[in-house]
Amino acid sequence: MRVAILAHEKFPDRAKTAVGILRYGHQDVVAVVDRDTAGDRVADHVPDVQDAPIVESMAEAPECDALVIGIAPIGGDFDPSWRPDVRTALKRGCDVIAGLHYPLAEDEEFARLATKHDCDLQDVREPPEDLDVASGTAGDVDAHVIATVGTDCSTGKLTATLELVQGLRDAGYDAAAVPTGQTGILIEGWGIAVDRAISDYAAGAAERLVEEAAAEHDVLVVEGQGSILHPAYSGVTASLLHGAMPDALVLCHEAGRTVIHGYERFAIPPIGEVAGRYEQFLEPVAPAPVVGGALNTAGIDDNDEARRAIEEFAAAIDAPVTDPVRFDVEPVVEAIADSPEVE
Amino acid sequence: MRVAILAHEKFPDRAKTAVGILRYGHQDVVAVVDRDTAGDRVADHVPDVQDAPIVESMAEAPECDALVIGIAPIGGDFDPSWRPDVRTALKRGCDVIAGLHYPLAEDEEFARLATKHDCDLQDVREPPEDLDVASGTAGDVDAHVIATVGTDCSTGKLTATLELVQGLRDAGYDAAAVPTGQTGILIEGWGIAVDRAISDYAAGAAERLVEEAAAEHDVLVVEGQGSILHPAYSGVTASLLHGAMPDALVLCHEAGRTVIHGYERFAIPPIGEVAGRYEQFLEPVAPAPVVGGALNTAGIDDNDEARRAIEEFAAAIDAPVTDPVRFDVEPVVEAIADSPEVE
Repeated sequence: MRVAILAHEKFPDRAKTAVGILRYGHQDVVAVVDRDTAGDRVADHVPDVQDAPIVESMAEAPECDALVIGIAPIGGDFDPSWRPDVRTALKRGCDVIAGLHYPLAEDEEFARLATKHDCDLQDVREPPEDLDVASGTAGDVDAHVIATVGTDCSTGKLTATLELVQGLRDAGYDAAAVPTGQTGILIEGWGIAVDRAISDYAAGAAERLVEEAAAEHDVLVVEGQGSILHPAYSGVTASLLHGAMPDALVLCHEAGRTVIHGYERFAIPPIGEVAGRYEQFLEPVAPAPVVGGALNTAGIDDNDEARRAIEEFAAAIDAPVTDPVRFDVEPVVEAIADSPEVE
Repeated sequence: MRVAILAHEKFPDRAKTAVGILRYGHQDVVAVVDRDTAGDRVADHVPDVQDAPIVESMAEAPECDALVIGIAPIGGDFDPSWRPDVRTALKRGCDVIAGLHYPLAEDEEFARLATKHDCDLQDVREPPEDLDVASGTAGDVDAHVIATVGTDCSTGKLTATLELVQGLRDAGYDAAAVPTGQTGILIEGWGIAVDRAISDYAAGAAERLVEEAAAEHDVLVVEGQGSILHPAYSGVTASLLHGAMPDALVLCHEAGRTVIHGYERFAIPPIGEVAGRYEQFLEPVAPAPVVGGALNTAGIDDNDEARRAIEEFAAAIDAPVTDPVRFDVEPVVEAIADSPEVE
C-alpha cells in the first residue's frame, strides 16, 4: 500500500505515528505532508528509515492509496488546519486512515466525500463494540508475556516493543508484538487502542489481546501506554498492566527527560525508583520484575556519552539496558528469554 | 419524585443502587421490584432506610413517576429478564432511569415506547460528550479534597462518602459529595460515571468534577471507585485519584472480606499494607495520606465484635476508623478536618 503521511508542524520529533510507519511499517511512503519542513526529505531529519519527499499539502503528494494522519496531539483532537488535506485526499480517491479520538467517519463532510469518491475512512482507534470487563485470566496464557512500560508517554515503548520482537525472532523465538495504540495498530495491522476503550473495559481489552496473541505465539511483547506516574494517563497504564498480567517488564525512558512532557510540574523520580514503583504496583495482582531497560538516546550526539547514560540506567535498575535503535538489542532480549514465566 | 426500583434476584445484598436510594435518596420509593423477595417489605431486609413493599413485577407497583434500575451486574449489562418491567413502566407513562453500560435510549423497542407514551429514558452513566484529558490541575483548587478508596469494589465507598459529608455538615463545614458512579449520581442529582468515560479521559472527568464542586464548597468528599488492587477496575481507580488529586484518603473495607469479590484468586493484602499501597501510588503525582477508615460491619451481629474489628483496622492504619452506618462518624470527620490541605 502506498501512503502519504500528514504530520503538519510536528515532523519528526512530535510525529510518533509518522516516524513509526517510516521505520517499521510495511507501507510504501510516497510523501510526508508537513508545511514546516516542506521541500526537505525525510532523510534530512531521520536517518535509517525509508526516505520520502516532504510536501506542503496533500495536493502536492504523488499518487497513493491512502492518507494517514501521522500525528496525535494530546487529547487526540482533529486540527481544523488538516481539513483541506483530508478533503483533497478523499477527492483524489484516497482512503484516510486515522487514530484520533475524533472519529473521521462521523464527520459529515468527510463521510459524504468518502461515499462520493468511493473510498474509506478508517478510524483505527475505535475499539471493538463487544469489549467487556477483564476476567483476570491473562496470567493463565501459555506464552511468555513481556510488557514495555515507561517513565512517561513518548519514551519509546512502541519502538522497544518492535525492536525486542525482532531481536527475539532473530534469536529463534516465535515472538509477536501486541499493539495497544494507534501507531502499533497501523504498523502491525491488528490490536486495540486501549486508551480509547471505556475505562471499565480497558483491562478487558488488554486481556483479550494477550489471550488472542498467546494462542498463536510463544513470546509476546505488549506495547505499553502512558505511565503509572502520569497525572492524566495512569489509568490507561494500570488497566493495561492488570489486564495483560505480564511475566516481566522492560522500562523505557528518554535520556535527559526529568519531568512529565506537557505536565512539567510533575517530576519523573530517579529511574530505579520508577522501576520499583511498577513492581510495587503489580505485586499484589500479578507480580512482574523489571528485567531490562530501553533508553532513547537520540538527543545525545556522542556515542560514548550515550553508552554512559545506558550504563547509569542499567546500574540503577540492576538489569541490562540498551538503546534499541542505536545499539544492539541482544542484552535485553537475553534478559527476557532468561526471565521466568510466572504461573 | 415517586419511584419504583428494580432489583430482581439481588435485593438487598447485591443491589447497591437500590439500597443507596432507599437510604440516601430524596426520591419517595413506592416499591422495590424483586421476584425473589416479593411479598416482603424493605424493612424485613434492611433496617434504618425508608420502607416500601416488595412486588414481583412493575405491573404490581403503585402509581409512580419513574422506574429506576437498582442493580448493576458486573459489566453493566441489561438482563433480558428485566425487559417486561421496563416495557410495563413505559406503557404506564413512567420514565426509566438506569446507570448501566447498556444505554436504554439506544434500545429500539424502549425508544419507541418512550416516544409513544411521552416519557424519558435517562442513562445517568453516559458521560458528557465534551470530556477531555486531565490537565493535572485539581491539586490547585481552593477546597479541602478527601477521597474514599477501597480494598475492593462494594466496600462502602459511596456510603462512607455520604455519611462523611453529613458528618462534616453537622460539624459546621460547607461540605459536598462528588459523585463518580451511577448510584451517587442518582442520589445527588449530578456527577459523572468515571468508569464509563473513555480511558484517556477518565482522569479528566474526575478533575472536572472536583474543579466544579470546589467553586461552590469548602470541603469535598470524592466518591472512590474500584480499587488499585482490582484486576479489572484498577485503571478506573488510578484515573480517579490522579484526576481528583485529593489531600487525604479514607480507606473503606468490608469486615471479613479476604479476596476480591468475583475474582477470588486475588487476595486482599492486610489492611495496613493496602493503605500503604494507596499512599505509594499517589506519592509521585499528588501525595495524600490515609487519615481514616470506614469498615462495613453489617456481617457482624455482635456490637462488641464489630467494635473490635474496627479497633484492629484503626491500629493497622494508625488512624481513626468507624462503621459510618452503625456507629458515630465523628472520629473520622475530625481526622479529615485536622488533615492539612496539600498545596
